[in-house]
Amino acid sequence: MMQYHIKDLKLSKEGKKRIEWASLRMPVLNILAKRYEDNKPLKGVKIGACLHVTTETANLVISLKKAGAKIRLCASNPLSTQDDVASSLVKDYGIEVFAIKGEDKKTYYQHIDRVLELEPQITLDDGADLVATIHRSYKKSISWLPWAGTEETTTGVVRLRSLERQNKLLYPIIAVNDALTKFMFDNRYGTGQSTLDGILRATNFLIAGTNFVVCGYGWCGRGIAYRARGLGARVIVVETDPLKALEACMDGFWVMPIKDACKIGDIFVTATGNIDVIRKEHFLLMKDKVLLANAGHFNVEIDIEGLESMSTSKRKIKNLIDEYVLEYKGKKKRLYLLGEGRLVNLACAEGHPAQVMDMSFANQFLSCIYIKNNYPALQKKVYKVPEEIDREVASLKLEEMGINIDKMTPSQKRYMQSWELGT
Amino acid sequence: MMQYHIKDLKLSKEGKKRIEWASLRMPVLNILAKRYEDNKPLKGVKIGACLHVTTETANLVISLKKAGAKIRLCASNPLSTQDDVASSLVKDYGIEVFAIKGEDKKTYYQHIDRVLELEPQITLDDGADLVATIHRSYKKSISWLPWAGTEETTTGVVRLRSLERQNKLLYPIIAVNDALTKFMFDNRYGTGQSTLDGILRATNFLIAGTNFVVCGYGWCGRGIAYRARGLGARVIVVETDPLKALEACMDGFWVMPIKDACKIGDIFVTATGNIDVIRKEHFLLMKDKVLLANAGHFNVEIDIEGLESMSTSKRKIKNLIDEYVLEYKGKKKRLYLLGEGRLVNLACAEGHPAQVMDMSFANQFLSCIYIKNNYPALQKKVYKVPEEIDREVASLKLEEMGINIDKMTPSQKRYMQSWELGT
Amino acid sequence: MMQYHIKDLKLSKEGKKRIEWASLRMPVLNILAKRYEDNKPLKGVKIGACLHVTTETANLVISLKKAGAKIRLCASNPLSTQDDVASSLVKDYGIEVFAIKGEDKKTYYQHIDRVLELEPQITLDDGADLVATIHRSYKKSISWLPWAGTEETTTGVVRLRSLERQNKLLYPIIAVNDALTKFMFDNRYGTGQSTLDGILRATNFLIAGTNFVVCGYGWCGRGIAYRARGLGARVIVVETDPLKALEACMDGFWVMPIKDACKIGDIFVTATGNIDVIRKEHFLLMKDKVLLANAGHFNVEIDIEGLESMSTSKRKIKNLIDEYVLEYKGKKKRLYLLGEGRLVNLACAEGHPAQVMDMSFANQFLSCIYIKNNYPALQKKVYKVPEEIDREVASLKLEEMGINIDKMTPSQKRYMQSWELGT
Amino acid sequence: MMQYHIKDLKLSKEGKKRIEWASLRMPVLNILAKRYEDNKPLKGVKIGACLHVTTETANLVISLKKAGAKIRLCASNPLSTQDDVASSLVKDYGIEVFAIKGEDKKTYYQHIDRVLELEPQITLDDGADLVATIHRSYKKSISWLPWAGTEETTTGVVRLRSLERQNKLLYPIIAVNDALTKFMFDNRYGTGQSTLDGILRATNFLIAGTNFVVCGYGWCGRGIAYRARGLGARVIVVETDPLKALEACMDGFWVMPIKDACKIGDIFVTATGNIDVIRKEHFLLMKDKVLLANAGHFNVEIDIEGLESMSTSKRKIKNLIDEYVLEYKGKKKRLYLLGEGRLVNLACAEGHPAQVMDMSFANQFLSCIYIKNNYPALQKKVYKVPEEIDREVASLKLEEMGINIDKMTPSQKRYMQSWELGT
Repeated sequence: MMQYHIKDLKLSKEGKKRIEWASLRMPVLNILAKRYEDNKPLKGVKIGACLHVTTETANLVISLKKAGAKIRLCASNPLSTQDDVASSLVKDYGIEVFAIKGEDKKTYYQHIDRVLELEPQITLDDGADLVATIHRSYKKSISWLPWAGTEETTTGVVRLRSLERQNKLLYPIIAVNDALTKFMFDNRYGTGQSTLDGILRATNFLIAGTNFVVCGYGWCGRGIAYRARGLGARVIVVETDPLKALEACMDGFWVMPIKDACKIGDIFVTATGNIDVIRKEHFLLMKDKVLLANAGHFNVEIDIEGLESMSTSKRKIKNLIDEYVLEYKGKKKRLYLLGEGRLVNLACAEGHPAQVMDMSFANQFLSCIYIKNNYPALQKKVYKVPEEIDREVASLKLEEMGINIDKMTPSQKRYMQSWELGT
Repeated sequence: MMQYHIKDLKLSKEGKKRIEWASLRMPVLNILAKRYEDNKPLKGVKIGACLHVTTETANLVISLKKAGAKIRLCASNPLSTQDDVASSLVKDYGIEVFAIKGEDKKTYYQHIDRVLELEPQITLDDGADLVATIHRSYKKSISWLPWAGTEETTTGVVRLRSLERQNKLLYPIIAVNDALTKFMFDNRYGTGQSTLDGILRATNFLIAGTNFVVCGYGWCGRGIAYRARGLGARVIVVETDPLKALEACMDGFWVMPIKDACKIGDIFVTATGNIDVIRKEHFLLMKDKVLLANAGHFNVEIDIEGLESMSTSKRKIKNLIDEYVLEYKGKKKRLYLLGEGRLVNLACAEGHPAQVMDMSFANQFLSCIYIKNNYPALQKKVYKVPEEIDREVASLKLEEMGINIDKMTPSQKRYMQSWELGT
Repeated sequence: MMQYHIKDLKLSKEGKKRIEWASLRMPVLNILAKRYEDNKPLKGVKIGACLHVTTETANLVISLKKAGAKIRLCASNPLSTQDDVASSLVKDYGIEVFAIKGEDKKTYYQHIDRVLELEPQITLDDGADLVATIHRSYKKSISWLPWAGTEETTTGVVRLRSLERQNKLLYPIIAVNDALTKFMFDNRYGTGQSTLDGILRATNFLIAGTNFVVCGYGWCGRGIAYRARGLGARVIVVETDPLKALEACMDGFWVMPIKDACKIGDIFVTATGNIDVIRKEHFLLMKDKVLLANAGHFNVEIDIEGLESMSTSKRKIKNLIDEYVLEYKGKKKRLYLLGEGRLVNLACAEGHPAQVMDMSFANQFLSCIYIKNNYPALQKKVYKVPEEIDREVASLKLEEMGINIDKMTPSQKRYMQSWELGT
Repeated sequence: MMQYHIKDLKLSKEGKKRIEWASLRMPVLNILAKRYEDNKPLKGVKIGACLHVTTETANLVISLKKAGAKIRLCASNPLSTQDDVASSLVKDYGIEVFAIKGEDKKTYYQHIDRVLELEPQITLDDGADLVATIHRSYKKSISWLPWAGTEETTTGVVRLRSLERQNKLLYPIIAVNDALTKFMFDNRYGTGQSTLDGILRATNFLIAGTNFVVCGYGWCGRGIAYRARGLGARVIVVETDPLKALEACMDGFWVMPIKDACKIGDIFVTATGNIDVIRKEHFLLMKDKVLLANAGHFNVEIDIEGLESMSTSKRKIKNLIDEYVLEYKGKKKRLYLLGEGRLVNLACAEGHPAQVMDMSFANQFLSCIYIKNNYPALQKKVYKVPEEIDREVASLKLEEMGINIDKMTPSQKRYMQSWELGT
């Protein structure tokens, strides 16, 4: 009998339409699903997925099911679940889902446990909460281990590489995040656009003419910086890495320490993967009426507890906007936190557009098949996505966009291999 | 006794919060409202307003009421009304509103008639439907005329100038649209951002990497073109005016006839103020799965009737997206029309951000006072906003943004007046 | 017998090739020259021209000569003459030129006098030095007046409008500068690119990553600002007009008073048309090793005398770069002035590209014919270029670029004239 | 006795000033030169350098000499030598130079031989011609081998990696090109700007409004693409690698095969590192009056021989521009090749700005010291620049630009190492 824990089965109709709408924009995944529908290479394979429960994820798990897998899905963030999608997955596609938008922390982890009850052979993670739970529970409540897993996001990969360095990683992981067709597009274009989209939906704020502070100039941060500039903002980048800081500077952005940025910023977005990037001492320096948002995976980049503790009042100004009032040196300042400091693109908008998830999830899909075929040879390491997968995804995407490119001629190929030819 | 026709008084609570949220971003209007609250220069003046019923418009009519005016408000577009705002205006601010989102054409014009029953001394228009109705009804059902009116948008001004040229204009109009602090900001930055915002909210479509066709390179069109480019699109401009076409070309956009653009575009947005910009012969040329949206004032720029007549099927894919299926030369193509072809930034998003409306409406506010004080001297013409109003709005806005600028020194002023100094 | 005063007739060979090279990029002027070569509408008309003696100006005067005019040409700036071009004009095209690069002020005005000795019926000015001399000399050394004149540049138009307001303008002027096909392209794209080009040629300075200060946000200033941003700079705009300041701010630039900009700028460019924009008190605030350049018509925008008076040393670091050393609060700072503060795009590069001059000079050419045909009806006013000329130039240019645009359909034209159609 | 072969010793005065001017913009190298001037870590080390003989290279070899090295310098490209710089290096700094601008191929290789006569312990290469000559001559005319060498550019590294793969590399090489502080800045910002600079100096062509074709979307290609777009061009990218093609597409550029680009391009720039990118069949497709330039290391990317063979005439239109006339299908077309197809930024402008070379050459400088101290441990491999060198260069550069950045707090550092913390 199907098991699930979702908000309301009756939401399925709307969810189904939205899943189909996303499907229209996910041609690469569709091609792959069709290719493997008949011979079902994942037949009988148990997959546990801890991903944002969105229309795009729905298309991934549906495709995996078509390829023969048995799947359980929980949310990788308590606020990111789209309840109608969860409902349709259960009702229309027969997939076991454990996810409710706004679930509390306890429920969140119970849902992860329900996925682990499946004893999955492959884990799909977005932020490493599933694999972290396995690591915490192994030899306590858990006695089995998956063949291997995949990890979707930078934050998760950082955590897993840390485990790997300490020789504590219990099973192999493929870092889908590091596929060129993933991080180049998803982190940069996807997060870039959807972060701004989240801010617009929450606030309808005019970006042009604002001082827009981006903390972190990794792939996500630079995506956000370029999109904010594209909407007319003056962008200020805050970085701790001298190489990235220098690059931001050469890309035409203003670079300064967070404490200087605080005095002039109108909008602040964190995308560092680190904790406490904006802290108590920084809130005090800010202007009245600024917006605060986080685009990093966890809601730890803005010190919300600190903000709460120093506020003289707090109220919900509208859905997804909390107003915090501070007083400092006799001046009242109102700070507006979006989406409770959680991923603003998921909390306030719909997450990555289907077109970028198409490529990420095509990598996920092919990686699952790769794991099925190769897991005995894999070690307890974090692996890159095999280059042939990455290249296949890129070529399928270009083809779908109707873009032709040249091939090297034989003599050009020879030249690129040679060393004698010269000036 | 208060008269009104709105959707539901119970929506007022949410509406009030949203009106206040917008108010935070409308400092110039707030300064003016405060300045005139006590001596009430508009005391007893009857104002009839036909404007998009949004949170920003709410702040305008509240400010006018504070300055003493008696106001009736109807919608300037059947789809643009925010019902919660209408509700709060009635309940919390005692303003008579006649507007319901999605009202049919008949109700729309009945609402205009209800506003005219007030026999307003000043009319505020956005698209000239109020003034047009007066012109149609005068000496039939109407025997009075306003002192003067204001017009907010390009489309309305074009219509009124046409009337003026034919010597048929019945009373003076101030073209607020033509204030520098209006069209420079509102048409360009406001429409630019909110059009993209509307597309994103409706579709969550990745703009980067798309071929984005903008029809019309007026102030709205170029705002859209720059924002689409800022989000990573390849932008194609369609124009009929050689000067504008040349400018678009020099600004780095691709310029081509609509029939060529149709073959490669992924997203089409019209912003011409004209009819039938995208017609039957063009739909046939399009690729499968394109998006169609209109950012012009009226829903006449895309020939929707034509589209409907040639479609083999039509269905609502999700809220605000209609799918039309065509067949041409044996190929099926699906076109997705956003917001029924009405202004995409209002139908699918929240219209202009409060920050731009702040300036437009500060011009509106000061123009009403100007009309009150000067109407006997005005002729049946379309007037520009007096330059001193425009300049005052700009200075207040800069001040509020915390931006200082230099003043010319006396010798610099002298130099700018002189002609003798030279090489 | 031909009269002229140029540097060296032997330079003509190089000049001729360069004139031909420019001609390749001036197709609109070429089409017009060809069109009027046979019936010679300017037959016997005496034209006095005070223009930058460049390859593009050469093509204009050659075209005017083909149309029958008798021409004398002097320089409109002592540093802008290209001696090889002057030489070829004399030798290869039989045009009387009085211009030597680097001529002193006295020679400069003697050359203007030599042009006036022709007693021209039409004057062509770039900065109004010719017309100013006529105004100063009239009824003293001069007893005749031209039919009319043209003025190429903003600075000149400002001076002439000032004369007009004082009712002191002695003969009609057509402000070619105000043609859309002139100022939209020439001032913005031409000055924008060539100013950066001048800085690069003089300094080979990396623009990316610099703080680039643009004084003035008129058409030239914004052209420079966009190009500097396009090369990777962080651009700071200095303005005195609140409307322009606000626009710069909304366009994503930093706006601040000059004294604040001085503390952080790496490169300063003036484009205001005013005097003493950067003054003694500003030099003191600057960082070590900054670059100073002027893109305004006259070398009065940077207070060079002031700079000279406060410097402890001055030397020519290389051609077109002067180093000024200041000491302030015990700190030595070196400021580098490009091209002696004269128009940096002419002093350090080759001025506007031929493609933009093509349009300006097509306007000049057609305006001369217009003057010939209409001068008896013209009053002592500053006139706009007749719209039919502007439009013809635009259409010829688009055609030459291979760009087709749509025409309005009859029903679209009707709609644009109408007022009854509505919501 | 000093040995050298240069154009003219009398050019030294101009050269010295220009070397000093570049020195002003090379603060990182200056800091390092000063740091090592006293203890002379390179005392007695023989260095053979094959680099573009520019003002920046001058500063590098002067710094190396100050650190104790004995240096011989020849050109890495026959057209890139600045004769005044060569002269000053000999006369003012006592450095042995063998380089003359425009030297023929035979002289070019003789100059390389003269450098090798020094029997250098360290080789500095830019394009691998020095190391290639050693490889060709070893055991023939050469019996010694250097300790190690450095390679400055992508092309050279590709050649050396090819040698390494074939186990034919005779001594260790440090790929300075691959330092982040090199390729991120030099290849992208340096080549980007200076390529456009070269085109402008050669042609004074208006970039805005042109169709600008960039072949290759590596670091150089994308630098060029961004700068061309920044100057107002519509940019078309040609690529053979699907991943890079997809990235260019998502960055908002048009991507198409070279044969399609040929039909619409106004300007073509190659930056692929490959041969025959633009070939006979492509020239035929081009429009009249297009510009052709190469920004890749060798002049092999445009098939110049092919172009020559099919032209009906060829002439030098002006310095650095050759006109080729083709006839195809009865139509005459004129193609303009800049700088004979050699690196356009060196042939037509001054190469990379000093500010980027500052970082590349700081890497070179520190790599030489590293080789001196570590060569016995190095194998016959291509090495990366040690990370500590890269990071030191970045920090010095930021410091010099006056940019402060934050440091991670201890708890942030801990968090980045941890894996347990989660949702």
